[in-house]
Amino acid sequence: MPETLIKVDLQQSPLENENIHNRWHPDIPMACWVNPGDDFVLETYDWTGGFIKNNDSADDVRDIDLTTVHYLSGPVGVKGAKPGDLLVVELLDIGAKQDSLWGFNGFFSKKNGGGFLTEHFPLAQKSIWDIEGMFTRSRHVPGVRYAGLIHPGLIGCLPDPKMLQTWNAREQELIATNPTGGLANPPFAGTAHMGRLTGDAKAKAAAEGARTVPGREHGGNCDIKDLSRGAKVFFPVYVDGAGLSVGDLHFSQGDGEITFCGAIEMAGWVHMRVTVIKGGMAMYGIKNPIFKPSPVVPTYNDYLIFEGVSVDEGGKQHYLDINVAYRQACLNAIEYLKKFGYSGAQAYSILGTAPVQGHISGVVDVPNACATLWVPTQIFDFDINPSAAGPVKHLDGSVAMPLSQDK
Amino acid sequence: MPETLIKVDLQQSPLENENIHNRWHPDIPMACWVNPGDDFVLETYDWTGGFIKNNDSADDVRDIDLTTVHYLSGPVGVKGAKPGDLLVVELLDIGAKQDSLWGFNGFFSKKNGGGFLTEHFPLAQKSIWDIEGMFTRSRHVPGVRYAGLIHPGLIGCLPDPKMLQTWNAREQELIATNPTGGLANPPFAGTAHMGRLTGDAKAKAAAEGARTVPGREHGGNCDIKDLSRGAKVFFPVYVDGAGLSVGDLHFSQGDGEITFCGAIEMAGWVHMRVTVIKGGMAMYGIKNPIFKPSPVVPTYNDYLIFEGVSVDEGGKQHYLDINVAYRQACLNAIEYLKKFGYSGAQAYSILGTAPVQGHISGVVDVPNACATLWVPTQIFDFDINPSAAGPVKHLDGSVAMPLSQDK
Amino acid sequence: MPETLIKVDLQQSPLENENIHNRWHPDIPMACWVNPGDDFVLETYDWTGGFIKNNDSADDVRDIDLTTVHYLSGPVGVKGAKPGDLLVVELLDIGAKQDSLWGFNGFFSKKNGGGFLTEHFPLAQKSIWDIEGMFTRSRHVPGVRYAGLIHPGLIGCLPDPKMLQTWNAREQELIATNPTGGLANPPFAGTAHMGRLTGDAKAKAAAEGARTVPGREHGGNCDIKDLSRGAKVFFPVYVDGAGLSVGDLHFSQGDGEITFCGAIEMAGWVHMRVTVIKGGMAMYGIKNPIFKPSPVVPTYNDYLIFEGVSVDEGGKQHYLDINVAYRQACLNAIEYLKKFGYSGAQAYSILGTAPVQGHISGVVDVPNACATLWVPTQIFDFDINPSAAGPVKHLDGSVAMPLSQDK
Amino acid sequence: MPETLIKVDLQQSPLENENIHNRWHPDIPMACWVNPGDDFVLETYDWTGGFIKNNDSADDVRDIDLTTVHYLSGPVGVKGAKPGDLLVVELLDIGAKQDSLWGFNGFFSKKNGGGFLTEHFPLAQKSIWDIEGMFTRSRHVPGVRYAGLIHPGLIGCLPDPKMLQTWNAREQELIATNPTGGLANPPFAGTAHMGRLTGDAKAKAAAEGARTVPGREHGGNCDIKDLSRGAKVFFPVYVDGAGLSVGDLHFSQGDGEITFCGAIEMAGWVHMRVTVIKGGMAMYGIKNPIFKPSPVVPTYNDYLIFEGVSVDEGGKQHYLDINVAYRQACLNAIEYLKKFGYSGAQAYSILGTAPVQGHISGVVDVPNACATLWVPTQIFDFDINPSAAGPVKHLDGSVAMPLSQDK
Repeated sequence: MPETLIKVDLQQSPLENENIHNRWHPDIPMACWVNPGDDFVLETYDWTGGFIKNNDSADDVRDIDLTTVHYLSGPVGVKGAKPGDLLVVELLDIGAKQDSLWGFNGFFSKKNGGGFLTEHFPLAQKSIWDIEGMFTRSRHVPGVRYAGLIHPGLIGCLPDPKMLQTWNAREQELIATNPTGGLANPPFAGTAHMGRLTGDAKAKAAAEGARTVPGREHGGNCDIKDLSRGAKVFFPVYVDGAGLSVGDLHFSQGDGEITFCGAIEMAGWVHMRVTVIKGGMAMYGIKNPIFKPSPVVPTYNDYLIFEGVSVDEGGKQHYLDINVAYRQACLNAIEYLKKFGYSGAQAYSILGTAPVQGHISGVVDVPNACATLWVPTQIFDFDINPSAAGPVKHLDGSVAMPLSQDK
Repeated sequence: MPETLIKVDLQQSPLENENIHNRWHPDIPMACWVNPGDDFVLETYDWTGGFIKNNDSADDVRDIDLTTVHYLSGPVGVKGAKPGDLLVVELLDIGAKQDSLWGFNGFFSKKNGGGFLTEHFPLAQKSIWDIEGMFTRSRHVPGVRYAGLIHPGLIGCLPDPKMLQTWNAREQELIATNPTGGLANPPFAGTAHMGRLTGDAKAKAAAEGARTVPGREHGGNCDIKDLSRGAKVFFPVYVDGAGLSVGDLHFSQGDGEITFCGAIEMAGWVHMRVTVIKGGMAMYGIKNPIFKPSPVVPTYNDYLIFEGVSVDEGGKQHYLDINVAYRQACLNAIEYLKKFGYSGAQAYSILGTAPVQGHISGVVDVPNACATLWVPTQIFDFDINPSAAGPVKHLDGSVAMPLSQDK
Repeated sequence: MPETLIKVDLQQSPLENENIHNRWHPDIPMACWVNPGDDFVLETYDWTGGFIKNNDSADDVRDIDLTTVHYLSGPVGVKGAKPGDLLVVELLDIGAKQDSLWGFNGFFSKKNGGGFLTEHFPLAQKSIWDIEGMFTRSRHVPGVRYAGLIHPGLIGCLPDPKMLQTWNAREQELIATNPTGGLANPPFAGTAHMGRLTGDAKAKAAAEGARTVPGREHGGNCDIKDLSRGAKVFFPVYVDGAGLSVGDLHFSQGDGEITFCGAIEMAGWVHMRVTVIKGGMAMYGIKNPIFKPSPVVPTYNDYLIFEGVSVDEGGKQHYLDINVAYRQACLNAIEYLKKFGYSGAQAYSILGTAPVQGHISGVVDVPNACATLWVPTQIFDFDINPSAAGPVKHLDGSVAMPLSQDK
Repeated sequence: MPETLIKVDLQQSPLENENIHNRWHPDIPMACWVNPGDDFVLETYDWTGGFIKNNDSADDVRDIDLTTVHYLSGPVGVKGAKPGDLLVVELLDIGAKQDSLWGFNGFFSKKNGGGFLTEHFPLAQKSIWDIEGMFTRSRHVPGVRYAGLIHPGLIGCLPDPKMLQTWNAREQELIATNPTGGLANPPFAGTAHMGRLTGDAKAKAAAEGARTVPGREHGGNCDIKDLSRGAKVFFPVYVDGAGLSVGDLHFSQGDGEITFCGAIEMAGWVHMRVTVIKGGMAMYGIKNPIFKPSPVVPTYNDYLIFEGVSVDEGGKQHYLDINVAYRQACLNAIEYLKKFGYSGAQAYSILGTAPVQGHISGVVDVPNACATLWVPTQIFDFDINPSAAGPVKHLDGSVAMPLSQDK
């Protein structure tokens, strides 16, 4: 049995667990050390550290303080790993905690982070998803069931001081262009949890520590659904020992994690093995992580594919903007699914949680980028293909997703 | 044997073929009419109408007049199709012309359209790909071979006057923001080929006809590699008879068609069947085309996946810009492939022509969008996986891609 | 354009074409020679040389003289190939003749060869399948449509005299155990077509030539559906020049080719490339051919799987007999499909022509072998999955498969 | 968290656990009852009840008393299930016991059951496989690693008295043809474990209870690798409450389970949900179980495929005997793998444990059946494809599989 190096008690606040941290900083001490070749288990909180509950109210989604996230397990030191190496992480398996077989998906209020379609869904909403072995279903979104493409939304190694400085500088520069715009999140000491750092060392690191929201050169919060259990990832190493941390586990998610709050978010555990490729960064010209996907993934292959181009929903022409194009594809899919009886919120929730694919289909045909959204038809309990007979309403509207008005 | 409704003689100029057109306009007369349920064949020129040759010089890529493209076969009228219907097109098969079993890929000079990585590859370059049954290889890019995911880069129905007006207006508005910036292409009568229109009618339509470069609501030049032979597409209908046109066939292409000139471009034929879903646009809430992919596609599934985030190659932070993120993923892959002996141009050409996937992996984790580029390892004659031993140079640099200096 | 080395005129008898043969014998002269590395096209008759027609009578299936088959194109000599080498054949593409876009499937009368389920379907029956691009449909078997997994039922190299002698001897020994039982087919000069051999040389070879019915060490009539276009096959070489012949093309077939007459049988062409691995037989310990499947195959993956064990339909227990077990699985599937409105014959025809899989699931649990039959649900126009509501009859019995009484 | 209805203590003899049985008989009392729609967990012993140990000796494989197997967990009663219904079982997940993360594979001595290739491997041998998350490796068989296609080798419902009588009668009839031949296994009271039955009731049932070795109409020991976690199975119901039992879990297995002792055998647990289709047997014409495979399976798709025909290794011709044909394909693969350095036993063990496919490729081309064995190349740490350069020996013979001489 592999050893569980970091344990998590869901009844305890993550702030009391010194093997948890919620910022990136080279000074965070290793929570534990392993040898190359070792396999081990890390338990994790859900990304909010248990703030969102399994109930029928979206108040928690509305009220969450987003400076507190994401609660990560680690860092794990790998003996002998040096800056310039590649840390090879095999995700041998990932699962939910046995005492917490559920996950949540939601939309943040536009006033609190919003999401990809926040103009269309400006209020806090939530759906709860039960985990039934390899599958999930929601009492708030009837008629769909997914096989889990379980993955960590967030995984990566500690930055060195120079990398950290680069991150903070370039993000600060962006923020400066519109300080009230929520363009990025600067360091914030108030809610920083720096693992086992205390006192002045903690205060210093908390003031500098990069927020965990964006993915960056080290990987981090990339929310890549295909970086799933069974995958093999090659991470750049910046500090002695690498300092691998992981969290933000998702039972299932669509490309883009468009709902932001977020995928099907869960507490759980990751079983992994680490090895090292000495000097791998230069040898392979690696800047960002690369990975190989798992050989064990849902084999859904009957898709209905929605196109979108970079003309926004107001009719305005944008220049090769894939973000706009993907938003159109998503809005097109939502309109389509509504014809079968889903509310817009339920359809949006499906796109955020199901293993949908988002492809960058065309990026050179000026002025329109083209994006495609691939919806697997096999996740539905009924047939969603178009036919001459027209769509059948399979839902009568009696089931709704919890919604909370802004305060 | 299905009837070939439109024939193409590669020795003849497309301008002499009245079943060809290179603009979108409701006045273009139907080249032929079919009944719902019919299957038939349309032959097509390559998108440049034969301008690019099977030789070892990139001069033609450098010198092409991009106002002449794309040469499309059609429009085909479908009896009984009315505005508001969906035209269902089954792509029963697609192939190269037997007297033209090759295709081209290239990079436009930065002075003539450029491409996705034009800052890095500013000069005209070209590679020629031989079509060997279901597969393709290039004398200019050794060590790779692809099974064809054959598809039309461009397919769609005629716009009605209102839709045409919308297109021209919104694109003109964009152009007006930077008239010398190449942001979009306004109507241009000089090189317009309006099918069998002649005289004043032609002159009027040529002056108004939308250019074929971007994909739009009707589909058009979406360059979606998965809209391949065997796929089933549902197109919005705007005019009586629908007016389906097709062209710009690709033997193979990667997501994004990042090289712009373009995929593996070829002359060929499309065998298709058309049916109609009456009132389908409203019934299913359709604005852009939707489609179901083919059940017969290359099954490459061992991928090496490259991540990119929206910090550009100069280190500048962009806000949730998937375009920047995908560019980083592509540049990361090119650096990686160079370690195996490829020139940058050859690596770029592989990304433009192989069935690589480009996924929108994360679009909400401010400020970084995350994109992933999936490179199938099974297209290479050698192993490109990372290992502790480091990469092996399989190419000695003796084979180069033709390049032409700007004039 | 690859050269067509062997042409076939479907209006001409195969007996008049000296590049065709219907027996295996080392004395058959090479029809043509190629160099290793060459790619070329061979046209082929259907296996019966055109005896079965595209009509609505099964009389031809009833009346065919089975000593005349299979008409093969070849042999092709490969320069430098020597006994003990492996001949590597890449099936670059395969297709139907453009003037013959249809195929046939049938059941032989029990009096004339029968088939796997001849006790249940003792009379001659036939269905005709139209080839529509990558797909096929039958006017005799409604409600199904397949993407073609196109392959040669028969391909292999000439035997040397010793191998030929081994074949004839062991098969004669089997025949001797029950001379009237149709256990195997001995040489038969009367209808032998020995390519360009004439006179005494022909008479001698015709008297000795092995029949083409069974697959043997050289490959031959293995009827392996997965040896499809895009596959790469490694054949043992027994004679100088190898002597590769091919024929019996199938547009689609299920594992086992249980209907015997046969798959969806068609005339067509094969585009292939040949290379040689010197001394490959000993180097890799090869006795029978090995192959790698195509990367481009139908991706149907939603299966309904039927089990069968080796207790026959009369209730008799057999000992680890996979043949009996597979027959039970097939009979189980036929009973199931009849609930949706198919006749038994139509259901049988589907199992013979669709890309069904037949797996050897268990061969050690005495006394029962277990076989499974995998039926892809995606080939049906309607849902064939079991549900609490019970099956819906989608066919009203108005369409039947032609049947001919024994004379 | 789903309830664990049957628990298993691996330190305790299965004979002391009254929720375990090793014979099929309608009198075995239900171990527990559930409602349709319930999901629950059953723990299971390995099929030998813990007799085979994780060590480096094959003595236990040699010495096992095969009248003791298979130890099954159940029967589970499903309220309302009646004879003639279909019991729908969703295998929500399956795993190894956390305190037993390993499995075994072996060959029985020819004197004690043997196996598919017992003439070639007549002595007891064993390999131990460690379970590492979703993957497995063996210290006795280097160079391979599989993703688990985890499944129960044995699952099915209780027979009614008539069905039981049919089984015993037909198997007895076979045994009578050669009483010393090991053709089948008659009831044997001596080692029968009849769950919670005691006294005379137990004695009577033990004397009549069908052995668990073969798969039969109810499913049972079918050893179908694709009936894996995530699959949905439809079982015939013969008794009130159905009486579902399960055991003989396999972490991975090849088609045929050719090594007999057996797959990668493990103790573990099954999480399942049961529902009922009333009258489903007649409604769908069901005799044997049918099932739908899991949407989450290893996606290995690069295969090397070995052919075999029904001429045995002594050169004798058999008539359409798939068993002989598959044996030849397996022997061909073993010879091939030996060229890379494997011992014959190691190669045999790979074919028994890896997710290889065995296809019934041709069953009508008299006299030769043709079978194909599909070996996934992606399970090997090195390249096993044929090439002009010849095979590379990757193993030096220093690692051997334990072997025990017959006593």
